[in-house]
Amino acid sequence: MREAAAFKGKGVLVGIGDDAAWLKTSQTSLLTCDLLIEDVHFIRGTIPARLLGRKALSVSLSDIAAMASIPDYALLAVGLPPDIELDYLDQLIEGFLEVAGEHKLEVIGGDTSASPLVIISVTVLGHPLKKGPALRSRANPGDEIWVTGTLGDASLGFELLKKSREQELEISELHYSSLIVRHFDPAPRLKAGLKLGPLANSMIDVSDGIMNDLTRILEESGQKQNLRAVIHLDQIPLSDDFKKFYGGHPLRSRQALSLALSGGEDYELLFTAPRGARTEIAKAGREMDLSVTRIGKMEKAKTREIILLDQKGRKVPAPKLWFEHFPRQERNRN
Amino acid sequence: MREAAAFKGKGVLVGIGDDAAWLKTSQTSLLTCDLLIEDVHFIRGTIPARLLGRKALSVSLSDIAAMASIPDYALLAVGLPPDIELDYLDQLIEGFLEVAGEHKLEVIGGDTSASPLVIISVTVLGHPLKKGPALRSRANPGDEIWVTGTLGDASLGFELLKKSREQELEISELHYSSLIVRHFDPAPRLKAGLKLGPLANSMIDVSDGIMNDLTRILEESGQKQNLRAVIHLDQIPLSDDFKKFYGGHPLRSRQALSLALSGGEDYELLFTAPRGARTEIAKAGREMDLSVTRIGKMEKAKTREIILLDQKGRKVPAPKLWFEHFPRQERNRN
Repeated sequence: MREAAAFKGKGVLVGIGDDAAWLKTSQTSLLTCDLLIEDVHFIRGTIPARLLGRKALSVSLSDIAAMASIPDYALLAVGLPPDIELDYLDQLIEGFLEVAGEHKLEVIGGDTSASPLVIISVTVLGHPLKKGPALRSRANPGDEIWVTGTLGDASLGFELLKKSREQELEISELHYSSLIVRHFDPAPRLKAGLKLGPLANSMIDVSDGIMNDLTRILEESGQKQNLRAVIHLDQIPLSDDFKKFYGGHPLRSRQALSLALSGGEDYELLFTAPRGARTEIAKAGREMDLSVTRIGKMEKAKTREIILLDQKGRKVPAPKLWFEHFPRQERNRN
Repeated sequence: MREAAAFKGKGVLVGIGDDAAWLKTSQTSLLTCDLLIEDVHFIRGTIPARLLGRKALSVSLSDIAAMASIPDYALLAVGLPPDIELDYLDQLIEGFLEVAGEHKLEVIGGDTSASPLVIISVTVLGHPLKKGPALRSRANPGDEIWVTGTLGDASLGFELLKKSREQELEISELHYSSLIVRHFDPAPRLKAGLKLGPLANSMIDVSDGIMNDLTRILEESGQKQNLRAVIHLDQIPLSDDFKKFYGGHPLRSRQALSLALSGGEDYELLFTAPRGARTEIAKAGREMDLSVTRIGKMEKAKTREIILLDQKGRKVPAPKLWFEHFPRQERNRN
């Protein structure tokens, strides 16, 4: 670990090798910690160690992205069973360092420990833009609801992966490998967070599906007055592969609807912004070559709820099939 | 968790309830993360949840103490098996918050997650004194070696606890309960770190026994020239209960010697300081009502080693019985 993370930047005053890391920090900082546990958040045999290392950091960076902030430092702690393959840790660290390099943050330390299971703890410290971070708690009635990228790909990818294992297919034999990549190797939307955060009133990353994560915005923003979210299902952004898989009108399939709205692990940004921000949001999307789609609106309401509307404006019941699959996100995620 | 940690201080701009915590920070910060894993660092049935919560934070604070720094914020992430007692998490958090309150730091967030085992991840962010933190890497030849408090108590306490379980004794039936308390509820030496750090050239907390932790100082400080440590065994500070247990000349017992030097979990401060600091160190000890004992000296050397001397100045071989017991500290501890 020490050698692997020896690239020590100017912000790191003391890195690995002392009781704690000593770092240059800004006036205000963002801090997040995620715990990834074997058989809960991942299954060891189903994800290569390098990709697990990548994903472990990407998932934490997605939290920083959703705060419209810049990640500076990461700490990695790993618990490893005695029966693990020799180069498992090396590959895991390699993947972790790859993502750190891609987003220019420094890995300042790491512990390894014996453990009955593979356990990964990732801590990321960052700093916000001058304006401050984007929060979950500042959505206003009248805000429009937006989401980056496409939804449901990662969870459909995971379903396909499970199927391929049941049928003993090689992944390469499957169509839709782009969906599986979304499950294995999510891209934290850091640049998008920095561009869109200042235009947004509230922002969150979609880790548990927009039904769950929108509920969190409603809860955090609705402390003074209740808000409800009205979502137009025909506006939900879906990838070509997702559409191809379900054909015709994908969201008429209850499974597709469930995956797109609550499958989880999209790691896109969900945000609300005033109507006046439309042009700038569209411009930001073009500049990043990333789709940013308006999917609904926040309204004052008596009851905190999410209303789903079909093409004709008719209410659609929320999908009942909440996928309870691996990897499951933490309850009460920070 | 949210309610429990609702005491939100002025440094916390956004705490629990967003993607990451947003905090006021100093120009430089100290960051440490520890992973505590069931059956590796503790055994569930042998430590009450409240004490486990206390210990989880105390152990991380000991790292901050050894940097002569002030802890400001803590993040807690817990993995919990489905079969856990209902109030286990509440008690664990209660203990964690107790220690946070005792040392005036703020708990800014926490995740809970399903898990096959109890897993605790603790992140602490702090700031150093103006002079900067005490490091492991600045010991000089000629420095005298000091240690706070007494050594070996926690590991002897743990041995007694194991014995009591084998013999099915109640803890209250045991003598030496003070030793068992040292195992269950270590006191992080934060005040001592702040007082002694500025007098010290190098400092570390004794988590794995002074043989191991002194080796870390030798390694970190001996990058340019090799250092060796000469330790006078009759100077090793032992508690009255430790002495009473072994009687007469405790360090003539190889077991006692092994526990005192490499039993681990002392969480005292081990530091080196120039000869000229003697008076001030003694004064600091008196002011804190904490014993601070000079146990040896750093010397220039061809080989990096620790030399143990008996009362008559004869070399004593290092204890061969390195206790490999639970709870074991992480290898490669940060």
